[in-house]
Amino acid sequence: MIDETMEWPLRLSADQARINAELEELFAHRDTPADRLEAAMRYAVLGNGKRLRAVLVYTAGRALGADDETLDPAAVAIELIHAYSLVHDDLPAMDDDDLRRGQPTVHKAFDEATAILAGDALQTLAFEWLADAGHGRLAAMIRVLAQAAGRDGMVAGQALDLGVVGGRIDAEALAQIHRYKTGALIRAAVLLGGLTAVPMSDPRLQHLERYASAIGLAFQIHDDILDVTGDTATLGKASGADAARDKPSYPALMGLEAARAKADELLDEALAVIAPLGEAGEPLAGLARYMIERDY
Amino acid sequence: MIDETMEWPLRLSADQARINAELEELFAHRDTPADRLEAAMRYAVLGNGKRLRAVLVYTAGRALGADDETLDPAAVAIELIHAYSLVHDDLPAMDDDDLRRGQPTVHKAFDEATAILAGDALQTLAFEWLADAGHGRLAAMIRVLAQAAGRDGMVAGQALDLGVVGGRIDAEALAQIHRYKTGALIRAAVLLGGLTAVPMSDPRLQHLERYASAIGLAFQIHDDILDVTGDTATLGKASGADAARDKPSYPALMGLEAARAKADELLDEALAVIAPLGEAGEPLAGLARYMIERDY
Repeated sequence: MIDETMEWPLRLSADQARINAELEELFAHRDTPADRLEAAMRYAVLGNGKRLRAVLVYTAGRALGADDETLDPAAVAIELIHAYSLVHDDLPAMDDDDLRRGQPTVHKAFDEATAILAGDALQTLAFEWLADAGHGRLAAMIRVLAQAAGRDGMVAGQALDLGVVGGRIDAEALAQIHRYKTGALIRAAVLLGGLTAVPMSDPRLQHLERYASAIGLAFQIHDDILDVTGDTATLGKASGADAARDKPSYPALMGLEAARAKADELLDEALAVIAPLGEAGEPLAGLARYMIERDY
Repeated sequence: MIDETMEWPLRLSADQARINAELEELFAHRDTPADRLEAAMRYAVLGNGKRLRAVLVYTAGRALGADDETLDPAAVAIELIHAYSLVHDDLPAMDDDDLRRGQPTVHKAFDEATAILAGDALQTLAFEWLADAGHGRLAAMIRVLAQAAGRDGMVAGQALDLGVVGGRIDAEALAQIHRYKTGALIRAAVLLGGLTAVPMSDPRLQHLERYASAIGLAFQIHDDILDVTGDTATLGKASGADAARDKPSYPALMGLEAARAKADELLDEALAVIAPLGEAGEPLAGLARYMIERDY
């Protein structure tokens, strides 16, 4: 249970425990036709994820009055989409990563075919889990999730990202890629949380969306900065990976200090746009500060 | 428009033209953030597909009283799931096929990363397109589609199939794989068509489901037979591919004649279970005969 007076790190831990328990449920009490596939899916979903997208669903949804139980399916769905995208992004034909969250990536722990199939089935499961909940605004929720995940969102961002490795782009083009690749799903997380509470026409959803756009980009810039300043052990993935692959990043394009200033500016913007939510928006402010200032 | 008196081949052509026009719509009037991704998706979806799954949606739906317009989204969704599965199944880490429907496979015509992403985005689009239609039974329809496509259906079948290459299995185990790998989506096609017309509780959906189970397996046996008896030019893919890969198949397990007899037996079963639908079920009977007796 979330106590409204909880300090942010405690609240975060409570939400992480909640979503982890929900994700465990996906694999409980099941007859599995394909054991190895199921094991790979489980491996991809459970583990050391920070669950920021699920936490965004809960935090945004509560800000507009939804209770935790009705928010669970959207939180699960968004984490499943995120997990599937990591499995596929890590594949040899894509980013070719061996390590993720401090563990071998799925195609390393299992094999490439199983990783492709596990990612595929995790995406399917996201929509199934959402549909199972039978929310009255299911059609709008599926649309939000699909638009964020597919050819107009995350997958487009990954395709654009692959296209520029080794090429020259400017900070604006890089922001555009991030808006698709990571920003779209972060926007979807707050919108799904909000939609659980209120209809699409509620103007507060627009505040939430602008908040999400700002923290989404800030979060990515911060991630790029950590890739330069962090070390492999605390990141749980190879540090310096972007530079080693000649991938464009904010620190590389604008310098470390300017990148930090840009992230701070976006954080201020996020805090400003949720000001109209008043006290109900406080946890969203705490989460934004945490996402940008975290040291791992 | 479908004229009820039309002979089966004409009716089939009309439905194929209808679904092809619907699939073209997926790519019309769009700003595409990622052109190459979009081109690969388009390449994967359009082309020489037989569209049997869409035709099953239309034929089953009409048998229970749905009109063509309300059946379009389900027909599109099922073809998108089918198209995505072909793209991923053809990948080097999976079946490693160079040719599909007489054309280079997506990873050959584009590249492997683009093929993975195009498949991913096609799956997303299936759920988005279904949600966009906003059918009153959307939750049930998404559940049917997701259960057929994911870890309890098609993806499980592909995982099981990959696990037995070069191994020894019997005809019953092979039937089990087919039930997941191709049968699940064929069942989903007739159920989605039926659900467009009537609620899940309507007993006629059970007739449709049994019909689909029978023709699904018969169709796969027939496909295995064609792999032995057809040639590459008429199949549009390499003939003898199953044997070359040491993949188990019905002709290999039980002999060509016994395989033919099994397909015929399943066809008779399909025709018997839809007999209660009377005249309204006639087109379903025609389609079953066509699927099993076709010569390409």
